[in-house]
Amino acid sequence: MTRLQLTLAYDGTDFSGWQTQEWVGKEQPRTVQAVVEDAFRRILNNPVRLHASGRTDAGVHALGQVAHVDVPDDRAHLPWAKALNANLPDDVSVLGAVPAPADFHARFSAVSKVYAYHLYEADRRALPMRRRYVWAIGHLDEAAMQAAASQLLGRHDFKAFQNTGTPVRDTVRELTRFERSAGLMPGEWIWRVEADGFLKQMVRNLMGLLVDVGRGKLSPDCVQELLAGCPRECAPFATAPAQGLFLERVKY
Amino acid sequence: MTRLQLTLAYDGTDFSGWQTQEWVGKEQPRTVQAVVEDAFRRILNNPVRLHASGRTDAGVHALGQVAHVDVPDDRAHLPWAKALNANLPDDVSVLGAVPAPADFHARFSAVSKVYAYHLYEADRRALPMRRRYVWAIGHLDEAAMQAAASQLLGRHDFKAFQNTGTPVRDTVRELTRFERSAGLMPGEWIWRVEADGFLKQMVRNLMGLLVDVGRGKLSPDCVQELLAGCPRECAPFATAPAQGLFLERVKY
Repeated sequence: MTRLQLTLAYDGTDFSGWQTQEWVGKEQPRTVQAVVEDAFRRILNNPVRLHASGRTDAGVHALGQVAHVDVPDDRAHLPWAKALNANLPDDVSVLGAVPAPADFHARFSAVSKVYAYHLYEADRRALPMRRRYVWAIGHLDEAAMQAAASQLLGRHDFKAFQNTGTPVRDTVRELTRFERSAGLMPGEWIWRVEADGFLKQMVRNLMGLLVDVGRGKLSPDCVQELLAGCPRECAPFATAPAQGLFLERVKY
Repeated sequence: MTRLQLTLAYDGTDFSGWQTQEWVGKEQPRTVQAVVEDAFRRILNNPVRLHASGRTDAGVHALGQVAHVDVPDDRAHLPWAKALNANLPDDVSVLGAVPAPADFHARFSAVSKVYAYHLYEADRRALPMRRRYVWAIGHLDEAAMQAAASQLLGRHDFKAFQNTGTPVRDTVRELTRFERSAGLMPGEWIWRVEADGFLKQMVRNLMGLLVDVGRGKLSPDCVQELLAGCPRECAPFATAPAQGLFLERVKY
């Protein structure tokens, strides 16, 4: 077998996230993994198993999700990106498909990941053509948000920023970037965050905190308390909605 | 009655264009006009009639469509934008609603209109989150396209660039802008075109010609023949698809 490294983009709006799920009633939830595995199956006439760098939640988008898959050696040099795209719906796209070393693992070989969260700061709701890709939130205090973001940089226990779910033994992660840049349209701002790994819904919780700081509901200083082990209840913040979040890049 | 001037944005993907249409079978096609008139009816408990600067085709988007409507004087000072948005689906948005002079007419008072056409020039299909808003077309010869565009500027008979439909007596229009700028994402280019008026599907036909010139299928010189009265058959070009087209602004 030959291992392939895939780079994928998808519009998360109409997906129940990345990971293939149990059937609910008569219908299997539509997931990115199932749709891409199905394209492989049609090309190979055999099932394959895709392994992603990590799951993305329902509604979360990707511009550079990475996954690996093993295919028979005699099929390794198919023009895979083209063949897969011909078998994929238009809300998932294979940007690249290249042979990888046999020990490459999309999840365990990853060194860091970059997420981008898109905010729309205006007195109105999102523009119709941007409604699936931003969180429309009104005007925010940028200086306060920057103060909070800079305190989150570095190696910390991010336990207060994980949502309940699969228990994780080690909740220490290193945040190496958390910065703001102009977005695609007037009024849009992108917060880009990079770390060696992320806990469940960690980016959406970081953004929820940042927005509550930007609205003046929380002080930037509560970051210290949360990182020091104070539970989330001592500085309650919202989880940012999925539709503003993009997995931009996985670094190896 | 007081006349209101509305500025509207919409994602044309799920609309059968602007104009309210006859029922087809048991279902009325979903149009922007019908959806906005319905929001007014719910607020006023009375029907109103909206008049737009012009129709947009099925699938065409707007960032600055303008329409007028008459409302009872005692309702003129409602916070109309807010009230309408609360009654509109999220693919239409009222950006502004202000009282206008009684003789203001969204169509007849317009001095010029600006359309933007979004191309994605790459070896791959459109990114999933941009698929509804660009025409993915491969690489194009920009110099040839610029040469064609510059010959289209000015006052000409654009008969060769109208699609069949309602016959129009006067097919002379003045093109005052036709220029290229960088788009929202890497590989995207916007062609912005301004004129004192547009014939049916004129922008999509201008872009169809430009793209065929950019692909090398037609010479930029065929512009002169088409403007000189040669029918479209003498230099056959495609009509660009609706989803790349945005009505950006109507000037008064």
